[in-house]
Amino acid sequence: MSDLPPQRTLPRVAARLDARIDSVDSLLCVGLDIRLDRLSPRLRREANPQFAAARQIIEATADLVVAYKPNLSFFEARGEAGWHDLQLTMDLLREQHPDIVTIADAKRADIGSTNEAIATAVFDVLGADAITLHPYLGGGALRPFLDREDRACIVLARTSDPGSGEIQDLLVDGRPLWERVAERVRDGWDRGGTCMLVVGATRPDDLRRARELCPAMTFLVPGVGAQGGTVEEVVAAGRDARGRGLLINASRSVIEADDPRSAARLLRDQIRAAQRA
Amino acid sequence: MSDLPPQRTLPRVAARLDARIDSVDSLLCVGLDIRLDRLSPRLRREANPQFAAARQIIEATADLVVAYKPNLSFFEARGEAGWHDLQLTMDLLREQHPDIVTIADAKRADIGSTNEAIATAVFDVLGADAITLHPYLGGGALRPFLDREDRACIVLARTSDPGSGEIQDLLVDGRPLWERVAERVRDGWDRGGTCMLVVGATRPDDLRRARELCPAMTFLVPGVGAQGGTVEEVVAAGRDARGRGLLINASRSVIEADDPRSAARLLRDQIRAAQRA
Repeated sequence: MSDLPPQRTLPRVAARLDARIDSVDSLLCVGLDIRLDRLSPRLRREANPQFAAARQIIEATADLVVAYKPNLSFFEARGEAGWHDLQLTMDLLREQHPDIVTIADAKRADIGSTNEAIATAVFDVLGADAITLHPYLGGGALRPFLDREDRACIVLARTSDPGSGEIQDLLVDGRPLWERVAERVRDGWDRGGTCMLVVGATRPDDLRRARELCPAMTFLVPGVGAQGGTVEEVVAAGRDARGRGLLINASRSVIEADDPRSAARLLRDQIRAAQRA
Repeated sequence: MSDLPPQRTLPRVAARLDARIDSVDSLLCVGLDIRLDRLSPRLRREANPQFAAARQIIEATADLVVAYKPNLSFFEARGEAGWHDLQLTMDLLREQHPDIVTIADAKRADIGSTNEAIATAVFDVLGADAITLHPYLGGGALRPFLDREDRACIVLARTSDPGSGEIQDLLVDGRPLWERVAERVRDGWDRGGTCMLVVGATRPDDLRRARELCPAMTFLVPGVGAQGGTVEEVVAAGRDARGRGLLINASRSVIEADDPRSAARLLRDQIRAAQRA
């Protein structure tokens, strides 16, 4: 980034995130992991049950969040009917909540020509602002995503589940592979603020290390709540010099709560308190 | 596999592949990378254009192939309409060509609970026999796929595009990461024949190395034809002790040929000749 003129504006998604954080004073991202088998009998009888459930969550939490992260897989589990509900959800977000950033939790990556099709599907058809990506095929293959400077790429670095170290902790020159991935994103893949990293909440030391490596990057942090990481640890270990730089994601702990609004507000308030600590 | 009784039968997909190779004497897999923008005006006017195109390819080539590999991304690029065409394509294959193995080229992987949803989408809704998977989250996360011994998991090891070495060639204990991935699949993830590896055609030395590491595993080999690898090199470097163990994939070079049947037959015959050389 050193060769950019200092007056350069932030890329679109980074600027929108920043503005949204300012306006709602939150770092909360709610994951729309809408599972049909967890819906109430009433919702399941709706013509578009996953959309109806997502709309309910959105209506209850929109003023509390900076981003929504629909997980494509739970919609795909219903085939084309699920894609229909996903499209309705994305259309609703774009039309009614244009200030909220949308992250397609797709976890994709293929060779270049296929990535063009995925970028079309996720950025243009669904209209998402950002996509989660696997790093394994390298930054060259990812160019159809990385070159879309109107969107953001969120690359998996350190994931939150217990066995994620099997590959991610393999030592490359004495340091875990995931650190090398983070450095490649920072030095080669990012276009002045278009890239973020996934860094799980369950290992605060790794979040601290990721912040050392990437002082200016935003981290999408899954694993708070149902998976066990605490908000205080995450904010202390992961915040940037401005006290932000984090999108703290909660999925099940909000959307499957008896009162999703209360669950989201509690998390937002815990995050605020941790930011001020 | 040493603790398995010697009379153990092959897992379902491996046995079906073997039987199909016997019956049609081919190692050819045709990739159904159906791009709407490459279809003829006549096909584009069909109600289900990608399905119509896929059906045409299938009718022209079914007796020449052991597997079809629909690339989900090119269908997803049309949103729910594309998923509808993909479902029709998978239904056609299951109903009319039950002996042909179907590979969902999905390149997925997430944490465990999400992988359950993907397994439902790909194995149960689409009905695919096999799925392509990213290794980055580790074998623990992949259990919803690996535990489905009625299906096959095809893990990305060495991909075929020019920049794939950026991550895959990072040295772990002095050897490229992708070799470690191949070993983990061989020793920890495979259930006696349920796993395969993606090893690109463009680097025959890597294919030879993969065969040394995994003598009994089947490799899905993209990159023949349009991407530049030759059939002779691929077969010489990658075949197993029985002269098979390869699924040699061609996508654009068959499906966008003026005469897809001739293109597929030529490839099948080149593969046969190389097997006998």
